[in-house]
Amino acid sequence: MSGPFVIIGGDAAGMSAASKAKRENPELDVRVFEKGEWVSYAACGMPYYVKGDVDRLEDLVAVTPEEFREQRNVDLRTNHEVVEIDPNGRTVTVEADGERFDQAYGSLLIGTGARAIEPPFDGLDLDGVFTLRSMDEADAIEDDVATADPSSAAIVGGGYVGVEMAEALVERGLDVSIFEMLPRTLQPFGEGAARVVEDHLREKGVELHLETAVRGFSGANGRVEAVELEDDAVSADLAIVGVGVAPNVELAEAAGVELGPTGAIATDEYGRTNLEDVYAAGDCAEVTNVVTGEPDHVPLALTANRAGRAVGTTVAGEATPTGGTAGTAIVKAFDLGAARTGVVDEERARNAGFDPVSVTIDAPTRPHYYPGATELTVTLVADRKSERVLGASVVGRDGAKRIDTVATAVDAELTVSELEKLDLAYAPPFSPVWDPILTAAKVLSGKLDE
Amino acid sequence: MSGPFVIIGGDAAGMSAASKAKRENPELDVRVFEKGEWVSYAACGMPYYVKGDVDRLEDLVAVTPEEFREQRNVDLRTNHEVVEIDPNGRTVTVEADGERFDQAYGSLLIGTGARAIEPPFDGLDLDGVFTLRSMDEADAIEDDVATADPSSAAIVGGGYVGVEMAEALVERGLDVSIFEMLPRTLQPFGEGAARVVEDHLREKGVELHLETAVRGFSGANGRVEAVELEDDAVSADLAIVGVGVAPNVELAEAAGVELGPTGAIATDEYGRTNLEDVYAAGDCAEVTNVVTGEPDHVPLALTANRAGRAVGTTVAGEATPTGGTAGTAIVKAFDLGAARTGVVDEERARNAGFDPVSVTIDAPTRPHYYPGATELTVTLVADRKSERVLGASVVGRDGAKRIDTVATAVDAELTVSELEKLDLAYAPPFSPVWDPILTAAKVLSGKLDE
Repeated sequence: MSGPFVIIGGDAAGMSAASKAKRENPELDVRVFEKGEWVSYAACGMPYYVKGDVDRLEDLVAVTPEEFREQRNVDLRTNHEVVEIDPNGRTVTVEADGERFDQAYGSLLIGTGARAIEPPFDGLDLDGVFTLRSMDEADAIEDDVATADPSSAAIVGGGYVGVEMAEALVERGLDVSIFEMLPRTLQPFGEGAARVVEDHLREKGVELHLETAVRGFSGANGRVEAVELEDDAVSADLAIVGVGVAPNVELAEAAGVELGPTGAIATDEYGRTNLEDVYAAGDCAEVTNVVTGEPDHVPLALTANRAGRAVGTTVAGEATPTGGTAGTAIVKAFDLGAARTGVVDEERARNAGFDPVSVTIDAPTRPHYYPGATELTVTLVADRKSERVLGASVVGRDGAKRIDTVATAVDAELTVSELEKLDLAYAPPFSPVWDPILTAAKVLSGKLDE
Repeated sequence: MSGPFVIIGGDAAGMSAASKAKRENPELDVRVFEKGEWVSYAACGMPYYVKGDVDRLEDLVAVTPEEFREQRNVDLRTNHEVVEIDPNGRTVTVEADGERFDQAYGSLLIGTGARAIEPPFDGLDLDGVFTLRSMDEADAIEDDVATADPSSAAIVGGGYVGVEMAEALVERGLDVSIFEMLPRTLQPFGEGAARVVEDHLREKGVELHLETAVRGFSGANGRVEAVELEDDAVSADLAIVGVGVAPNVELAEAAGVELGPTGAIATDEYGRTNLEDVYAAGDCAEVTNVVTGEPDHVPLALTANRAGRAVGTTVAGEATPTGGTAGTAIVKAFDLGAARTGVVDEERARNAGFDPVSVTIDAPTRPHYYPGATELTVTLVADRKSERVLGASVVGRDGAKRIDTVATAVDAELTVSELEKLDLAYAPPFSPVWDPILTAAKVLSGKLDE
C-alpha cells in the first residue's frame, strides 16, 4: 500500500478509523470526506435532545471537526461528498462546492452508514412528518415541537427509535400513538420483554396499534393532520417514521463492491471487501454474528466504533480483526430498561441450525426484605443438544445492564450449566443471592433435563 | 448409602442441601440439626436491620422452620446441637434439652458455618462490645443503639462488616471510627477501589485509623468507654469487632475430617471430605478458586447456597459438582458500590504462578451529555504471558454490578483481547459506547503490548 488512507464518511466508523490510524502511525496521511456538516456525533442521543434531557444539539458531538484537524492531525473535509470509487485507478471522485476532483488512495474505508427507510407512504413530504437519522432531522423535530405546538404524534414503527421517541414526545406533552405492523414492539427482544414494555407504554398513556399497517399521511395546508390506515384514520399533528434503517451501499456497489446476504457490504474478519485495499465498516457493512457464525447487519454504535478502530489499526500496519457481534442492545422505555443479546427469536435460532429451548422468568433484583426491590423479566434461550446459551432478553425498572453477563456468556460459548455456575456479585443492596440471570439459568437447566 | 441424610447446621448450605435433596428425591429421609433458633437467614442483611432499612429481624428469614417442616418435608430440629461424629459407626451424637441421643446417617453434610474471629483483646466482655455474625447479635446491637443511646462507635476491622456497619451506625446518628491494622480498608478489593471508598467514608464523617493496632477496650461500670490503642485511647460508647471469620471445624476435625491449606474443611469437587459419605459445604468448607485452581475459603452466601444445593442433588442420586468460586463480592459503602472478582492482589497472583499486569482507570458510566453520568473506577488485572484476565475491582456511585461481566470472563478464562471484544450493551441512559469494562480492557491491552 502506498498513498493516503482515504475514508468516506465522518461518523463512528470513519472517525474511529481515522483517529486510531493516526495514533498508531502518525506519518500516515489520513483524509476523511464527509458529505454533511456533522462528524462523530452520538445519533443514539438524539431522542434525548428532543425530550429535553440534552440542552444543545452540539453536546452530542464527541469530537469536533476542529479537534480532529488540530489535535488528531486528521485531514477532515466536511461538505465533501465522494460520488465515485475507481478501484482500478485507486481513486475516488469528490464533489464539493459544485466542483469535482480525484483523490488517490492507498487504502480506502467505506463508512457511508445507513439511512432511515422511507416506506412508500403517501404524504411523506407534508410538514410535520419526519424520520430521525441525522442531526438536522433531530433539530427539525425539536424545532417543530417548540414552534408548531403539535398536540398529538403518530410514531410509525415500534423499534428502538419508536419507543425512545414515544418517551421523548410524551415528556414534551404530546399524546402519542405507535403504529406497528408486527404483532409486537421491539421485535428482536422476544415476546417476553416486548409484553412488559408494551404494558408500561400503555401505563404511560401511549396508544399502541399493533398489527396495524400504515398507508400514509394526510393533511391540510401542507401540514400533516392524520395517519391513514387501511380503513381508518387517526389524527396526528406530528409524525415520526422509524421503521428501520437501510445500509448506504450504492456508491460501493457501483464500484463493484460485493454485498452480503443482509444487503450490507460483505467483509472478511478484518473488514476487507472483495476489492483490494478497500475496507467497509459501520452501519453500511456486515459483521459476523458470534452465535450463528453468519454475516449479520447490526447498525449499532459499538459495532461501528470497534470495526472502524480495527480497520484503522490494520491500515496503520497491524492486522486487527474487527470482532464479531452478539447483537447486544439496550433501550430505555420511560421507567423501564429493556436489553437483548444473541439470538432470542426461536425461528431465527432454528434457521441457524439450533434447536432452541427457552424460559421466561420474573425475578427480584434485590432480596424481598431490602427496600426498592423490583422485578426483572428474563428470557433465556439455549440449544437443546449442545446446551449452549444462544441469547437472552431482560426488562425491568432496574438492572437491564445485567444483559452484559449473558453477552459475555454468549461470546464465550458457555453452556447453560456453566452460566448457572457463575460467581456473580451478591449483597442485599445490589442483588438477591441468586442473581436473576442465575435463576433463569437454573430454570432453563431444569427444562433441558426434562 | 442407606439411612437418612443428616445435616449439621441449618443455614445457607444446610437448608439448601435439605430442600434440594427432598425435591429431587421426596422419599429420602432428611434430618437437619441446628444448634440455635434461626435457620436460613440472610446474614448479609443484618447491617440493614441495624441501619433501619429492614423493619423486623424476622424479615431476614427466607424460609421459616415451619415452612421447611410442613411444605418441604424436612425433619428440621432447632436447638439441637451435634456434639460428636462417629464415622465408623456412621452416627452423630445430638444434644438437646440437656439430653443426648445418637442418630445414624447414610450420608452426612457438615454445614457448621463460620464464626466471628475474636482477637485477644482486653474488655471483649464489656457491655456495648459486639461481633456481628448471628441474628441474636444483630438484635443485641440494634437494641443497644435504641436503648443505651451511644453517641460514638468504634469499629475494629475495615472489611465488609466494618464498612457496612459504619454506614448503618452513621445513619443511626453515631460518630463512627474505623480501626484497621492494614494500610487500607477492603483489602481484597485492591488499592484502587479502597482509596475511593476511603475518601467517601471520610466525606460521610467516618474517621479512619489505618495501620492502627487495637489492644482492646476499656470501660466503667461494665460498659465500654474507649478503644485502647498502642499508646492512645479513643472514646467509644459502642464497639463492633469485625476482623473476619473462622470456619467452625472443631467437630469435624475431632472425627478425623481433614482440613485444607486455608484451615477450612478440604473437599473434592462434589463437596466430599476424606470420610466416606461425609460432605462439607458453606462457610466451614473450602471450594476451588477458578483462577488459581487452588482450594480457597470464601465464606459468602452464594458459594454456600450453591455448594449445599449441589450436595443435596448428589445425595439424592445425581452426582453434581459444587462449582468453583471467583471470590466475587460486592459491598455498599454509603452512596458507593464496590465490587471485586478473581485475583486482584498482585502478590497473590504471583504466588499462584502468574505475572500480573494491572491498570486502574476512571471512566464515566454514561455519555458526557446524558444527565446523571458518574465515574466508575475500574482495576483490571491480567497475566502478562497468557494475557488471561485474572480479576478486577470496580467502585462508583452506580454500576458496581458491572463486575459480573468480569466474573464471567474470569470463569470462562477469557484473555484481555477477548474481553475487549465483548459486545456489551450501549444506549445513553445506561452506558457510554465503550462500557467502562471495555475501556479498562483497551487500556490494559495497550499495556500488555508494550
